[in-house]
Amino acid sequence: MNVVVWNENRHEKSNETVAEIYPHGIHGAIAGFLEEENVSVTTATLDEEEHGLTDEVLNNADVLVWWGHMAHEEVSEEIAEKVKQRVLDGMGLVVLHSAHFSKVFKKLMGTSCDLKWREADEKERMWVVDPTHPITEGIGEYIELEKEEMYGEHFDIPAPDELVFVSWFEGGEVFRSGATFKRGKGRIFYFRPGHETYPTYHNKEVQTVIKNGVKWVNSTNTPTPVYGNAKPLETINN
Amino acid sequence: MNVVVWNENRHEKSNETVAEIYPHGIHGAIAGFLEEENVSVTTATLDEEEHGLTDEVLNNADVLVWWGHMAHEEVSEEIAEKVKQRVLDGMGLVVLHSAHFSKVFKKLMGTSCDLKWREADEKERMWVVDPTHPITEGIGEYIELEKEEMYGEHFDIPAPDELVFVSWFEGGEVFRSGATFKRGKGRIFYFRPGHETYPTYHNKEVQTVIKNGVKWVNSTNTPTPVYGNAKPLETINN
Amino acid sequence: MNVVVWNENRHEKSNETVAEIYPHGIHGAIAGFLEEENVSVTTATLDEEEHGLTDEVLNNADVLVWWGHMAHEEVSEEIAEKVKQRVLDGMGLVVLHSAHFSKVFKKLMGTSCDLKWREADEKERMWVVDPTHPITEGIGEYIELEKEEMYGEHFDIPAPDELVFVSWFEGGEVFRSGATFKRGKGRIFYFRPGHETYPTYHNKEVQTVIKNGVKWVNSTNTPTPVYGNAKPLETINN
Amino acid sequence: MNVVVWNENRHEKSNETVAEIYPHGIHGAIAGFLEEENVSVTTATLDEEEHGLTDEVLNNADVLVWWGHMAHEEVSEEIAEKVKQRVLDGMGLVVLHSAHFSKVFKKLMGTSCDLKWREADEKERMWVVDPTHPITEGIGEYIELEKEEMYGEHFDIPAPDELVFVSWFEGGEVFRSGATFKRGKGRIFYFRPGHETYPTYHNKEVQTVIKNGVKWVNSTNTPTPVYGNAKPLETINN
Repeated sequence: MNVVVWNENRHEKSNETVAEIYPHGIHGAIAGFLEEENVSVTTATLDEEEHGLTDEVLNNADVLVWWGHMAHEEVSEEIAEKVKQRVLDGMGLVVLHSAHFSKVFKKLMGTSCDLKWREADEKERMWVVDPTHPITEGIGEYIELEKEEMYGEHFDIPAPDELVFVSWFEGGEVFRSGATFKRGKGRIFYFRPGHETYPTYHNKEVQTVIKNGVKWVNSTNTPTPVYGNAKPLETINN
Repeated sequence: MNVVVWNENRHEKSNETVAEIYPHGIHGAIAGFLEEENVSVTTATLDEEEHGLTDEVLNNADVLVWWGHMAHEEVSEEIAEKVKQRVLDGMGLVVLHSAHFSKVFKKLMGTSCDLKWREADEKERMWVVDPTHPITEGIGEYIELEKEEMYGEHFDIPAPDELVFVSWFEGGEVFRSGATFKRGKGRIFYFRPGHETYPTYHNKEVQTVIKNGVKWVNSTNTPTPVYGNAKPLETINN
Repeated sequence: MNVVVWNENRHEKSNETVAEIYPHGIHGAIAGFLEEENVSVTTATLDEEEHGLTDEVLNNADVLVWWGHMAHEEVSEEIAEKVKQRVLDGMGLVVLHSAHFSKVFKKLMGTSCDLKWREADEKERMWVVDPTHPITEGIGEYIELEKEEMYGEHFDIPAPDELVFVSWFEGGEVFRSGATFKRGKGRIFYFRPGHETYPTYHNKEVQTVIKNGVKWVNSTNTPTPVYGNAKPLETINN
Repeated sequence: MNVVVWNENRHEKSNETVAEIYPHGIHGAIAGFLEEENVSVTTATLDEEEHGLTDEVLNNADVLVWWGHMAHEEVSEEIAEKVKQRVLDGMGLVVLHSAHFSKVFKKLMGTSCDLKWREADEKERMWVVDPTHPITEGIGEYIELEKEEMYGEHFDIPAPDELVFVSWFEGGEVFRSGATFKRGKGRIFYFRPGHETYPTYHNKEVQTVIKNGVKWVNSTNTPTPVYGNAKPLETINN
């Protein structure tokens, strides 16, 4: 399995706190723990040519992990369309935290993907609401994060195909923080936590969920539909 | 309730068969039977200024019915975006037949919306698979159409929120021909039949389903979410 | 529309606090505010003959509202089966609070319907997660209840057809507190709040949701499926 | 993975055609091709003591495959309840063909599970409607069966969590013939084909789907919810 971890990689350059928490960037941290699994991992970032997402990179990727926040608009329309198309063609997509507002996710959802938010160093507790789901394998009834950004409902997404986690926030909100979607031949997992100023991606349980998510979105040898004009399979009496 | 019936209105001008079946256009036929209900109906077509969909028209519309086929690409990007936004803001949308490939529907679904098709004067039988759904009110177990265009699976849409009809075709295919979706504050009903060369919209049962669909997508006084930065509702101890 | 409000009516007899809050019983309180709508409301309770649910009562009921808690096991198997059958035949069902453990709801869900709970006079905030849903008509982004019993995930129900509310609890849990299900020709709405020692059913917003729920589950003139041996509709060549 | 294939094994004893097609019983045929995978397979049948489903057998089973038809009522209530409970506790369940009317499936669905049927040696074509689903791995756009029993809509099940296959029948009906459900910690796959008088379980594509189904329902190390009275995780101010 080839996994590409994409990161905007801007906060890391401009904010010392972020640089300290993620000395190799958020993409480096995520690639680091994904490498513990039996997968091939590479990274790509916004400021590389074609954002690091050349046709070759995209065509070889089985799964793309996406983190973005302050520079969604700098992602070129062309690349965003290509990524969307690859998902429809079967590439898995893991969408993390503020990537809810990425071009790719919004194009695939068809909605605003808007939400409430607040940076107040508050506690988040993500409850498992689907204990049959392989994405929850190896974790307990909930994951607790001492400090995170709050994301609150209403989260403007289509009703997920599967709702896996619901978050409780200290400040009084709830959020559908783990959700799966199928689009075309591709599978998508949105996972909420991961504000850049907290060490969330160093949390072992968060890492487990992302590892599980990567496996779950990875496509298999399923049928490729044929579209367009079709000859009848049966005699038509007209 | 204000309903706007939008039609491309091109086949009617270039194809005598279509003009004969729908002397007032497909939009005229649909507006005609919708007027039997207690609603206010107007029409709009592609070749009008702003495709007949000015801000005023859109802002006053509770429900928009959309039929298009040969000229999807002539719908301006700007208008398509406005219509999408109005759906997210709560305007109901009924998408008919070949409008599966309209810009508006594709934007809202996030997928290719592609399918198999064939024009072979074949029989279609639409089976009700959700007999609790108000969209099926007043019809029987199935609707039979002697001659229709075939649409076949795989239909590249997100899994519908509700699957209402599944079609059987004489030539050997099946199709998810009645499906509902919620996007933002808006409700959407896709209904398959209505190829321009057949008198499908004169069929009483098809009319009943479209009437029901218009009622079902009509929005009510539900909460309007507030998005963006939010103050805590509870004390945060950090 | 004929609505029957069913209540166990036991806490009211044995607990003074409950009797004070609901002098006419929980059923009386619910019937009271439902009567404000254009519906015919009657009540039925556990200790009546056949629990007040004779064939005549059930056959005339369009919607049944159910509250039970301490005496689920005293509901006869026969009556529970009859109620279940009526739901499958099209009677709407509104299941309130501790009725998650009622025989009728468990039979219809097929799961244990178990959950976490706690009586600690804590705050509940029910967030709307589906702002398109008619059940949320007329309320705001959330409903706040100063003191309620806590119900926490995992709630062992099938994934709801629609998730309408998610609750935040002061003590740290979340709960899918408003959920719809379709079974057979019947529609079901589960709504969490309403512990007997709190005046929850006197809350105007809670009343609005229950009124909306009653309307939403009320069945319409949809197709009645025919089951069993069926003659072919097309010629079979074998 | 331990798989138990359960079969009523009655038609095989009383009907020569069935005995000829399945000399080792339907269970023998299914166990035979499942053994090609890396799994441990045993069989159990109705006329064995406890129907072959002792506590030990059930507790060791990761997945149970169920075929039954003429003797659903002879399955003891106690065993049916035990099987249901094991599914809720995490055992996977593959329900084949006429087992739609088995006690276990009906208990888990909460509906009548009724349908239309006809034995007329007619053609069935099962179309893939979810090409992302691992259950479709390794097959094409559809599976064609020259002769099968017809099952037609309305199929009285809850809306499936995932709809995988839809069947076309020569006689004019359609059917949701591959569907998944989650109940408790267990996963369920219903797969339609397999009438006893046809060699359906010798079809390689049908075998592939059943193999995939067994893998898909097999539970993983996901969280086991704790139910009942729960202490607060946060301070409650009351």
